Order: sequence, then structure tokens, then C-alpha cells
Amino acid sequence: MVNIKLSNRARNTPPSPIRKLAHLANNARRSGTHVYALNIGQPDIESPQEFFDGLNLFKQKIVAYDQSQGNENLCKAWSRYVNRTLQVQTSPEQFLITMGASEALVFLFMTCCDPGDEVIIFDPTYANYLGFAAVAGVTLVPILSNMEDNFALPAKNVIEQKITNRTRAILLCSPNNPTGTVYGRGELQFVLDLCEEHNIFLIVDETYREFVYDELEPLSILHLAPNNRRVIVVDSLSKRFSLCGARIGCLLTSNEEVLSTALHIAQARLAAPTIDQFASAHMLYNIKDDYLENARNEFQARRDALYYALREIPNVTVHRPKGAFYTIAQLPVDNAEAFATYLLSQFSCGGKTTFIAPAAGFYMQNSQGTKKARFAFVLKKSEIEAAIEVLAAGLLQYLRQQP
Amino acid sequence: MVNIKLSNRARNTPPSPIRKLAHLANNARRSGTHVYALNIGQPDIESPQEFFDGLNLFKQKIVAYDQSQGNENLCKAWSRYVNRTLQVQTSPEQFLITMGASEALVFLFMTCCDPGDEVIIFDPTYANYLGFAAVAGVTLVPILSNMEDNFALPAKNVIEQKITNRTRAILLCSPNNPTGTVYGRGELQFVLDLCEEHNIFLIVDETYREFVYDELEPLSILHLAPNNRRVIVVDSLSKRFSLCGARIGCLLTSNEEVLSTALHIAQARLAAPTIDQFASAHMLYNIKDDYLENARNEFQARRDALYYALREIPNVTVHRPKGAFYTIAQLPVDNAEAFATYLLSQFSCGGKTTFIAPAAGFYMQNSQGTKKARFAFVLKKSEIEAAIEVLAAGLLQYLRQQP
Repeated sequence: MVNIKLSNRARNTPPSPIRKLAHLANNARRSGTHVYALNIGQPDIESPQEFFDGLNLFKQKIVAYDQSQGNENLCKAWSRYVNRTLQVQTSPEQFLITMGASEALVFLFMTCCDPGDEVIIFDPTYANYLGFAAVAGVTLVPILSNMEDNFALPAKNVIEQKITNRTRAILLCSPNNPTGTVYGRGELQFVLDLCEEHNIFLIVDETYREFVYDELEPLSILHLAPNNRRVIVVDSLSKRFSLCGARIGCLLTSNEEVLSTALHIAQARLAAPTIDQFASAHMLYNIKDDYLENARNEFQARRDALYYALREIPNVTVHRPKGAFYTIAQLPVDNAEAFATYLLSQFSCGGKTTFIAPAAGFYMQNSQGTKKARFAFVLKKSEIEAAIEVLAAGLLQYLRQQP
Repeated sequence: MVNIKLSNRARNTPPSPIRKLAHLANNARRSGTHVYALNIGQPDIESPQEFFDGLNLFKQKIVAYDQSQGNENLCKAWSRYVNRTLQVQTSPEQFLITMGASEALVFLFMTCCDPGDEVIIFDPTYANYLGFAAVAGVTLVPILSNMEDNFALPAKNVIEQKITNRTRAILLCSPNNPTGTVYGRGELQFVLDLCEEHNIFLIVDETYREFVYDELEPLSILHLAPNNRRVIVVDSLSKRFSLCGARIGCLLTSNEEVLSTALHIAQARLAAPTIDQFASAHMLYNIKDDYLENARNEFQARRDALYYALREIPNVTVHRPKGAFYTIAQLPVDNAEAFATYLLSQFSCGGKTTFIAPAAGFYMQNSQGTKKARFAFVLKKSEIEAAIEVLAAGLLQYLRQQP
């Protein structure tokens, strides 16, 4: 029996809190249980017809490599789309096309940081940031934001206490995954000023930019700092257009040095997928504004359904999100992962159960999330209501069994 | 003017020797010159109709994330394909689908190595291995193979001198990029025994496995070590099926620990592209054997055309490759990169020029490659002949201008 040690970094890379219970959900499905998947940000809205039209227009006989910096036509289409919808001025040369926002963040961590360098994030955070940091050998420095404050940004002195001579960037996700918090103009300016003062990068993950509710308008860091060389936007088509599986993201900056250096890393992986880029370009040129308008209205209705349903459950505290399609709720259990596991493996109600993501994995300070869970409102309103009904029944039964 | 330092590792990541002169080629094309691209392994053979059939069969309304370990159906199709064509016994669970062989190698470096750990490669080597190693913080330890020996593997004691307590793997590419050398059963067994003796991993990049000429049969490390936990195969659809732009590769091993640990890293990037996986699965189930048979015959004819044409040029020495679609030639110039640059930016013959990849970037010991270039025989026979004719004329003129 061969025994070869694997790397510490691989063994220490935490499994995704969103996916780590997936095998239990698969078991439940196999045994005939319907699983309401509120664990993962996989929207059920149909992808735009314009994307499929683009797919049908692909008539190249050879599926060849595209450029490492991304398909030229896609860079143009994306720049034009952003300029039109946000009223900003970007140029195609400011884009580097990546395989999802995921790859954009890995490229940025590697471009901005040497191993051991630090990036400040706000806790709770998108769990995969931890994975990207592990891959890049970057130390994430978490600063806690509190549910009681609607996950607002911490005070200046609290953040500054964490800035060291190894700090290379602040990474902000707005609208936020996993909290649904939307940072306003004042908060963005506050972080931007901090980055100016300490001469570090500001990376803003705007994957959910258009998903803002209650009359909010989409806000980009580009609105405040259109040509600031320390500002890098990470973007993705995954959520906005229900194209998670197309794996098309980008990084966008006016800093040519960041672009040309990241390109070295991009060249090593050759290129993003050709057909998906082709179809995405066609879509961005032709997409109608009502696609996102409809999606936004739909998600707002789902947000309301989820929020009010969760609020009805005794001893559950729930945050009211202003954007994205997530929220965090505190559950009256000692351990939300044990409860999530219970729902998938020991409970069903009318042949149904609910899959939630335990929040501990979204907190670098895990213990802050032990009793919390992240809920994605990515199902139809009626399904969300049914899912929470099932969860409430499960919770009752779970609490009864506890000693 | 903002001045924020970028990381050393990004600045030190070498630009791809295959792509670094691409802007000069683009300039030449823009000014109306036809460029014969022998620099990049982008075959001009049409992708299989079965892939496009699969694309047309994709009727899902939502382009959703696939599984992090890869689409289940693709793993089945690939396993069945490998079992049928190579007469081996793999199971779908032994596959992890990646975005090209590139991502598979990054995952493996990260899984098998901590930063600073060492992987032995043979020089010249596929240049992007250097990029993957830079990304993963792995130290590649090159051992020179010589053109005079047809790039055969070095002797045991030469390799063993380079094995240290930080060595984690030997990485072999066969058929080889950039040399076209095919390692036979004896050589594979020799490396396997070395890895056994020193308890390290053997990673074999079999991207070009079916492209072997002169009556050779495709040989996999799985033929010698079907269930050896230290053996990991890296594979890709890119070259075999002219699908470079689909970005579909895999790693294949019977070592569950490697698979489950690499999966942690795979989860952080979520999944490979859904549509490309779908179409690839359909293709692998339905592809006819004559697709590869024809491609192989075609490449063999091109290999001959390239080899004989290069051999005609005075003072050029050329290696006769047995596989893949590359060879290395030594040119009568002081610096092959300067000559390649000259061809693209100062020379044309009848409105045409030739793009070759300077070999220095394929050698970790750069100076070993200064006078050499890599040629990819990925164009039609007649075009290769024309390309080499142009190159010969360019060489003559270049040498006349030298002091």
C-alpha cells in the first residue's frame, strides 16, 4: 500500500460550505425526497434567449484557442454594455476575460500579493475567497461585521488596526454574498479613501451589482473612481444572466500594469472557453433591458417571501437583505451544520426537505457563524415558502430530539 | 500618479514563449502580410461533427453550474472511451474534469506540493509548466535531455542526483511537447521504478497520446501501472479532437486521496463549463475511430513535410519527432528569438512570413535553447512547405544583414 503525503495546503483548503453537504442531498434525492436547494446561488431564472441565439450562431469548424486576454469581440461587447447601463466610460482594453469571477480573483491575488501578503475582507465573507487565498498563498485578514448592524462596514480605526506593511488590498463584495448587504456611495467612498491613505488596492466584486431592491439603483465603484489605478472591478455573467455554467467573468481596471501582469498568469492557462465567449458577446450586444428588470422584480418578491417566512419562525432572527440573493439567519440551534445535516439525512415532511448552507464556513472566525445559516432565494416564491415551511417543521422536530 | 507595487511572483512569471511575439504577428497581419503560424499547437483539423451535434443537443433552459468534480456523464463517457481505445479498466470515479490539462496540472502541483517543494521535469519542457509552477509556488528541477540523443531520458544516476527530500514528483510529457519524442515502454518503466524507489508521484501528461507515427501504437502509463496510487494521468481533449477552445481536460488516478484533495481546490473554482462538457460527453460516446486515424495520418504526412523541408536548409539541424505535432530545430543564428522577431516585423516574401516559437522559453536553462526554435506542424502539408520556404528565404536575408 503506497503512502505518499499530500501537500499541507491542499489538505488545509477548506471544503466549500456550500457544497460540502451535497452528497447528503444527493442521497436524499436518490431515496425519492424532493430537496429545496437554498444552499447554492444557482438561480432558476432562464438564461437569456440571446445567449442561446449566440450559441446557434457559432459556425466555426474548429473550436480553437481564443486570446489569453479574452475574445476581442466579447471585451468590446462587455465594455459597451457596462458603459450603456452604468453610464461610465470603459474601453475594451481595460478588460481581461476570466473563467468566472473565481479566476479573476485568483489572478488578482497572485498579481497583487506575494505569498504571505495580506488582503482585508469583511467577515462573513464569500467562502470561496478562502479557497482562492489558499491557492494563492495569501493571508486573508477578516474584520467582523455584525448582523445587528445589518453587516455595515466597521469603523475606520477598527479597520486600520488590521492594516500592516503586508496589506496589499481591501476586497469588498457589494451587493454582498453571503449577507445581501448593499454598500452605499458613502461606504464605498470611505473604503476608497482608506485605500488611498494606505496606498493599497481596492478590489470590488460586483457580481451581483444589478440585484438591488427597494428602489436602489445599481452602483459601481467606477461611479466614484472611474480612472483610479488602485481600483479593480471583478465581474461575472454567472448570476446576472443565469449563466453560472458558462464560466465567463472578467477583471476590469484602468491600471495597465495590473492587466499586463495578470496576463502573464492568464497566458499560462491559455484562454477562457471559446464558444461561451462567443455566445456571451452576442448576448451582451443584443440583450434587452427588461431581462434584468424582470429578474430584479422576481428576486425582490422572493426576498420578501423568504424574509417574512423566516421571521415567522419562533426564535429565528433574520437579516433583511437589500441586494444579491442571499441572507443570513440565526437559528435557535447549537450548531447549524448539525441541523442542516439532520434536514438532509434524517428528516422529510411530505416527501420534501430543505438544503441550507451552514454559515460557519462563511466566517473566517468560524464560531461567529455556528448558529447561523445562509439562505439563497433562488427558487420561485411558492417554493421558497414551501421550503421554509418544511424547515420550520424540521426545526421543531430537531429541537424536540435535543437533550 | 499612483504607484502600487505588484507581486514579485507575477512579475517573475515568464510570458509564454508561444504567445509573447503574438502582437508582432498581429501587426504583420494588420499590414496585410499572411502569417504561417507554426508557433502554436493549434491544429487546423476540423473538430469532430459529433461535438457540434452535442452542442446542438444542449436544450437546457438554464446554463447552470455542473459538479465540481465534473459532469457525471462526461466522466462516464471519457472512462468508457479510454477503456475501449486503450484496453484498460478505468472507472468514472477516477476522473476529475478540469479546464484543460492546464488546470489539471495546477491542481496536481497544489495537491502534491507545498510551496518550495520540487518536481523534476526534463528540459526542454512545455513552457506553460513553468507558469503552473510559478502559480503554485513549486520549484521545477530541470534535467537536460539532448537533441543529439533524440531527447532520450537521462541516465538513472543523473536523475537521482537531482532527487532531494523536497522532491514530490516526476512530470513526464509523452508524446512530448516541445520535442515530439515518444517514450517507449522501457522508458516509462524506468521512470516508474525510480518513482517507486524514491516514493514520489509520477505525473504523465498524455495530451498527445494518440499522435504517434511510424507504426507506433498509443501507449499510456496505465498500460504499465493500471492501479498504481502514485501514478496520475493528465489528459485533454484539446489536441486530440481539435478542441483547444473547449477547455476540457482531466486528471485520472486510482488514488482517491489525490482525487478528494484536488476536489477541495476544484470546488473553489466551482466547475468547468457546462455546455462544453455536455457536448464533449456526446462526442466521446459517438466518435468514430476513423477521426483519429485520419488525423494521425495527416499529421504524419505533415511531420515528414516539415522534417524534410527543414533538413534542406543549410546549417539547420532538425530532430525527427515520433509523436505529438512539434519538433525542435537548431538554426544557424546567434539568437532564435531575434530571428523570429525579424521574420514577423521586418521580413516578408511574396506577402508572407512565418511565425516560429523561439526555444529558449522551453528550456529552464534558457541558454540551451538560444539557437533553437519549436515548430508546430499544425498546418496543411502545402502550407508547411510554403512556410519553410519563406523561412529559408528569411534566414538567408537575415544572415546577410548580420555583421
